[in-house]
Amino acid sequence: MSDYTFFTNPMSRGQIARWALHEAGADYQQVLVDWGNKPQLLLDANPMAKVPTLIHHAADGVDRIITEGAAICAYLAEMHPDADLQPYEDEMADYFRWMFFAAGPMEQAITNKAMGFSVPTEREAMVGYGSFQRCVDALDGHFSENTWVCGERFTMADVYVGSQVDWGLTFGTLPPLPSFAAYAERLQARNGYKSAKAIDARLIAEMKK
Amino acid sequence: MSDYTFFTNPMSRGQIARWALHEAGADYQQVLVDWGNKPQLLLDANPMAKVPTLIHHAADGVDRIITEGAAICAYLAEMHPDADLQPYEDEMADYFRWMFFAAGPMEQAITNKAMGFSVPTEREAMVGYGSFQRCVDALDGHFSENTWVCGERFTMADVYVGSQVDWGLTFGTLPPLPSFAAYAERLQARNGYKSAKAIDARLIAEMKK
Repeated sequence: MSDYTFFTNPMSRGQIARWALHEAGADYQQVLVDWGNKPQLLLDANPMAKVPTLIHHAADGVDRIITEGAAICAYLAEMHPDADLQPYEDEMADYFRWMFFAAGPMEQAITNKAMGFSVPTEREAMVGYGSFQRCVDALDGHFSENTWVCGERFTMADVYVGSQVDWGLTFGTLPPLPSFAAYAERLQARNGYKSAKAIDARLIAEMKK
Repeated sequence: MSDYTFFTNPMSRGQIARWALHEAGADYQQVLVDWGNKPQLLLDANPMAKVPTLIHHAADGVDRIITEGAAICAYLAEMHPDADLQPYEDEMADYFRWMFFAAGPMEQAITNKAMGFSVPTEREAMVGYGSFQRCVDALDGHFSENTWVCGERFTMADVYVGSQVDWGLTFGTLPPLPSFAAYAERLQARNGYKSAKAIDARLIAEMKK
């Protein structure tokens, strides 16, 4: 049995988790989830019935369930220390700050923009992200000065934050700023990115046949 | 000089960070932020100009900036291992899963509901939270079966997830389910909760004078 059971769909945020699995060098078995016919095992594991959902068949015999793309990234980094993707002590501030920034304010700002939800200026303090533009500026500021989330070293935070940027540029949900484009290029050069994306690209091509 | 400079406003998510500081036993100096007149030090530290923002004056002489309530919780847990609030290996799945669930889908669902943004059923797959009700059910399911986020042991994840629940019950943004009410009661019994909330309550009372 593989160490992980990975519920995914190639056209989903499951791509983030697959990339994380490849960066970690994890041994996993995928279960492709059809939106119209979700497997009972997934429904039992995750009441949100979302992909990605990961089940870790841990060495102690207990199955651990991890949902949320960012959580899967953080978890895999901790479980696979040999991959050297978890933060060192002096990287933790940036690691947590930008992981939660991307999972919270940035995700919310991008989704609400795509849905056409606009926040009146006088109510911006009510929403955690303030405004879409402010989130973009914050992220742009970071990547104008840093190679990776934690400065000079690639960590698992780059899989999650980087997926937001890479995906945002591909689908036009983020503006094509020079700092974002250069960061995406660095991400795309990684072996883990290439091997993971190749699988999802193949699956998408098969679905379109 | 204190170890941490803590930018906050008592009527904000800064309450989460203060509670985390107290649970960690951290030595901090607060800077109260008036919405209309934000200190330059905050603007320099956080382009989002949000509270809570924490600056850690680390032992290596470098100032580390942490923003986002959940990130501040996770960071403080790691910096203060004596407080025993970071996850053990077999708690990491739940720890990261529910921290990112609360910071992502749950926060987004609560905010969008408060703002009156409603997602049509056929577009639910586009938003990470699916629906408000589905998020509530997932959280209710967990706390109907578990004492804390990580099962039987209080961890820093409870400060963040617990703040969502406690705040949600207080302001009516979450339904008063028995599992939520019982969890909030357990949270409120903690010394760290009591000492932190007493400070914010006093500050709010002074502001109203």
